[in-house]
Amino acid sequence: MELLKQRILQDGEIRGGNVLKVDSFLNHQLDIPLFEEIGQEFQRLFADKKINKILTIESSGIAVACIAARYFNVPVVFAKKTQSINIDGAVHVTRVQSVTTRRVYEVIVSKKYLGANDHVLIIDDFLANGCAAMGLIDLARNAGATIEGFGVVIEKGFQQGGKLIRADGVDVRSLVTIDSLDEKTGSIVFRD
Amino acid sequence: MELLKQRILQDGEIRGGNVLKVDSFLNHQLDIPLFEEIGQEFQRLFADKKINKILTIESSGIAVACIAARYFNVPVVFAKKTQSINIDGAVHVTRVQSVTTRRVYEVIVSKKYLGANDHVLIIDDFLANGCAAMGLIDLARNAGATIEGFGVVIEKGFQQGGKLIRADGVDVRSLVTIDSLDEKTGSIVFRD
Repeated sequence: MELLKQRILQDGEIRGGNVLKVDSFLNHQLDIPLFEEIGQEFQRLFADKKINKILTIESSGIAVACIAARYFNVPVVFAKKTQSINIDGAVHVTRVQSVTTRRVYEVIVSKKYLGANDHVLIIDDFLANGCAAMGLIDLARNAGATIEGFGVVIEKGFQQGGKLIRADGVDVRSLVTIDSLDEKTGSIVFRD
Repeated sequence: MELLKQRILQDGEIRGGNVLKVDSFLNHQLDIPLFEEIGQEFQRLFADKKINKILTIESSGIAVACIAARYFNVPVVFAKKTQSINIDGAVHVTRVQSVTTRRVYEVIVSKKYLGANDHVLIIDDFLANGCAAMGLIDLARNAGATIEGFGVVIEKGFQQGGKLIRADGVDVRSLVTIDSLDEKTGSIVFRD
């Protein structure tokens, strides 16, 4: 997605440890017209799939998922990172390790909103090591739902997540894939 | 907002401790066409204000804020509940006590995305005791931003948040205000 590449080149900032900061437009301040382009692109990429629900995970996946859902005409369900007293009854649960904090946390989704009749598109902002992604896939499979695809805004192609999830049979489509980041030169290499 | 009242009566569930569960459409599964109506209603309510940014807090505020932002043609900034390694540099910080966990957590927003030139509309899904709301107001004031208003989807009128924040001079508009919840009878009384 050319618009997104240009925006990353213009406003992305490279930090140590292969961190790409895009918080000026994607995951802290949110550029809604860009999100609309992102949502439409996901709709084009998954146009042949019968999708009745978008599944994502709090927090930064919610914005992308909500705007994308407008083009699919489906509801969003977002998985929550810890048990809340406001979700009672039966939930699907999986465990995810945070890369930033190393902490293992539980991720839950109510059984009322994810089940065997659902054909889900999973959406997230980043795909790097794939921990959160595999958590969402695990939740969907526990629910008996059909995973129609996995839409990612930015994939870090030099980390293992995309490879692992594709090997697991999931149709992963990334709007941009980054092959390398160089903190010293500021160079960002995109995959064609 | 009549559509929202009807939806709360149809799908809301009352739990002990004055909890109103609306997770089938507002804060776990998200009914996007309803969010579009909500966003348009906020735009009508605050049409006379010069707003250049919507401020909210993760997680469930993000969805409402993003869809509403389409009608204001402004970006969203969402405050984050804990320090992340992905936000470096200078941040505005405040402290908020969670009603559900009793834990006090830090809420931050980057100084790059909230400053003295901003005229913000704060948006959140619920207003009850006002802890999160006062945290967002504190962040905006620390930043020197002008608070043009506070848009709330559901206000619990029998809790103190709305009263406190209005007394503090903030223009609070709630799409529905609930005066009482009765777990035994299932009765929900809305304020006219």
